[in-house]
This record gives sequence, structure tokens and C-alpha cells, in this order.
Amino acid sequence: MDFYSYFRSSAAFRVRIAMALKGLEPTQRHFIHLRHGEQATPPFSDLNPNHTVPALVLSDGTALTQSLAIIEWLEETAPTPPLLPQDPTDRALVRSAAYVIACDIHPINNLRVVEHLKSDYGADQAGVARWMRHWMGRGLAAFQALLPAHEGPFCFPGDSPGFADVILIPQLFNGRRFDLDMAPLARLAEIEQACLALPAFAEQVPSRQPDAEA
Amino acid sequence: MDFYSYFRSSAAFRVRIAMALKGLEPTQRHFIHLRHGEQATPPFSDLNPNHTVPALVLSDGTALTQSLAIIEWLEETAPTPPLLPQDPTDRALVRSAAYVIACDIHPINNLRVVEHLKSDYGADQAGVARWMRHWMGRGLAAFQALLPAHEGPFCFPGDSPGFADVILIPQLFNGRRFDLDMAPLARLAEIEQACLALPAFAEQVPSRQPDAEA
Repeated sequence: MDFYSYFRSSAAFRVRIAMALKGLEPTQRHFIHLRHGEQATPPFSDLNPNHTVPALVLSDGTALTQSLAIIEWLEETAPTPPLLPQDPTDRALVRSAAYVIACDIHPINNLRVVEHLKSDYGADQAGVARWMRHWMGRGLAAFQALLPAHEGPFCFPGDSPGFADVILIPQLFNGRRFDLDMAPLARLAEIEQACLALPAFAEQVPSRQPDAEA
Repeated sequence: MDFYSYFRSSAAFRVRIAMALKGLEPTQRHFIHLRHGEQATPPFSDLNPNHTVPALVLSDGTALTQSLAIIEWLEETAPTPPLLPQDPTDRALVRSAAYVIACDIHPINNLRVVEHLKSDYGADQAGVARWMRHWMGRGLAAFQALLPAHEGPFCFPGDSPGFADVILIPQLFNGRRFDLDMAPLARLAEIEQACLALPAFAEQVPSRQPDAEA
């Protein structure tokens, strides 16, 4: 399995965590520098016509793209430890919450979207940061409200982290990078602390990747 | 099952199609007028703190939200006819393509995002339409490039429509509404024609919903 990543991509960060939780190690890692446009030029643009990281290329050459699809594939092909509960309704509640981040925050704050906001709609760097905090603040508050009340350390009940935690932690890294007010998100900060105490999360943070920059 | 919809929401449209393909009928339908802000006020805002349609409320009161989570739940609880293939790699390729639309087009063009673009970034109606066409054009081209070459009528090989078709058709309705240039998307227009020949798609289009407006 060849894994294509960028240290700061929160979608790639999700897949790094999911693979680490399942004890999987890519055969080879490739780094696609999004700020240098490597996602939009060959060879990567041939591999993923959508020009996004991550990508996971299987031994037969099949390229899997989109972090959510890759994580579902990992769950189906390497089911232990599970990231989703067994009961369909419980699975739907976990996915519902995770998709608030994965669909209603992350894509709107994607690098190419904020670049377009600058180039075509005149936003300056402060305007971009305001845009990002707006979607993170409202989305993470909704995510927190969707979590069930329970005594466990992670997003959903249970002794081990799951799909929602895998999606949450990278988004909180983005939040802190853009000075998001974490005061209303106290429950999420607690979950973050519990997750980052685990090597599968701590070793995959952007600053610890081989392609990391200051 | 109580289903909460808005005629023009392409996320709700997806779930309407998926339920129809599986022969499921909601016990009751509720209509949430997004332009009147009904998603952000009680009772709906209590049901979904993320203030989005669709929602599917089960007989025990559990509210499932996020169209993608609801469709996965339908697939798990009513597996026939299947919307996803059986092989995990095939499933991942279908999800990868579908998520290009569901994650990299639809959320960026969501009503609340373009309203924010107007109110905070000075876009006028033409600027909003340009924004929407930009993301639809690039995303649908990537989606089309991710489809495998085959002779069948739908997005992926097989005699019946699946997950990718369920996600595609509502996005094409949005595209036509905003005068998207369909010339580079000829394969998608063919798939649209094949899908709209089926009642499960044709009966769920926005104009045929009880809450439809001109």
C-alpha cells in the first residue's frame, strides 16, 4: 500500500490515525506538497483527477481516494479494532456526527476554497481566517451537541477511540492553528486530551510527519 | 420513520431516491423551509443541532441526520436492492467518486455558505452563481474522470443504479438550475437520462415534491 499524504492536510491526518489505530503501516509514503501545487500536476494528478490528498494505492495499482472512503475500506478489510459500532443505528449516529466535520466544516475551509475566496472575492488573510473560524465554530458546536452524554473519554461510549475521534482531532488542530475560541468546546478539548495520550494519534500529528514544515 | 425534507435540498433529494430505490415509504413527511429559516428554530433545531435537512426519525425517537449517514443506514438495514457493490475495493471506488460530489461540491455550495459569501464577502447574485458553477464544474469533471469505462447505463457497471447515481442526479439538478455548462459532462448527461427514466428518480425530483415552489 502506497500512501500519499501532506503533513497539514486534515483529511490525510485522519487516514494516518485510522491506519495507526488498526496497526497498519504503508509500504511506502509519498508526500504531495499542496502549497507547491503538486496535487494538480502529474504524476499525482493522473492518480487522482480530483487533485486531493490522501490517496492509498493498493498492490494491484488501484488508487483509493477520499479519506472517508479509505477509512470505510480500512474498516471493511481490517475490522479489528473496529472504528464503528456494530448496531446500524449506532453506526449512523457516529457517522452523522463525524460528517458534520467531514462535510460541513472541512471542505468549506479547504486550501483551494480559501484561495478562491482570496483570488475571486477579494478576501485578505484576516478575511480568510474569519471564514475558517466561522465554519469551525458553528460546526464543532453542532458536533459537540450531537455527542451522547456518557462518562467515557472519547466521543461515543466505549474504551477505545472510533471514527468520530479520528475525524475530530485533525479538525481541532486546524482550529488551534487559526485561533478558534475553544471555550464553548470544553467537551471536545477533553476528548482531544484523551486521544493525544495515545500513540496512534500523537505520532500522526502534522509536526511529526517527515514532510513537516514550521 | 418520520422524514424531514426540503424540495430543493439536494441532500434530501438523495435520501428520497435511496428510499424509493429500496421501496421504503416514510410514515410521515415533514417539510422544513430552508429559505424561511425553519431549520434553525424549534422544533427542528432541537432535532438536529446542525440545522440541516434531511433527517430521519426512527420509531423510538432517534434522529438520524446527514444524508450520507442515512443512506449507509438504509443500506445496512434494507440491503436489497444493494446500492453499493459487495467487494470492499469496489465499494471504496464508488464511495470515492460519490464523495467528490457530496464533500467537494455540495457543502461549498450550500445555501448557508453562499448566504455568508453575500453577507460577509460582498458577493452579489452573479458572484454567487459564478462560485457555484466553479465548484460544480471542477468537481463534476473530476467525478466523471473517476468513473470506470464500461457499457452500462449507470455510473458504475451493473444493471441497476447505485450510490454514485443517487448522489449525482441531485447535483445535476443544481447544475442546470445555475446554468452549468454541461458540454464537458456528456457521460453524466447520459447517466442522468438513464436514471430519470426510472420512477425512483423521476418521482423524487424537486418539482414533484408536495412543498415545491416555482
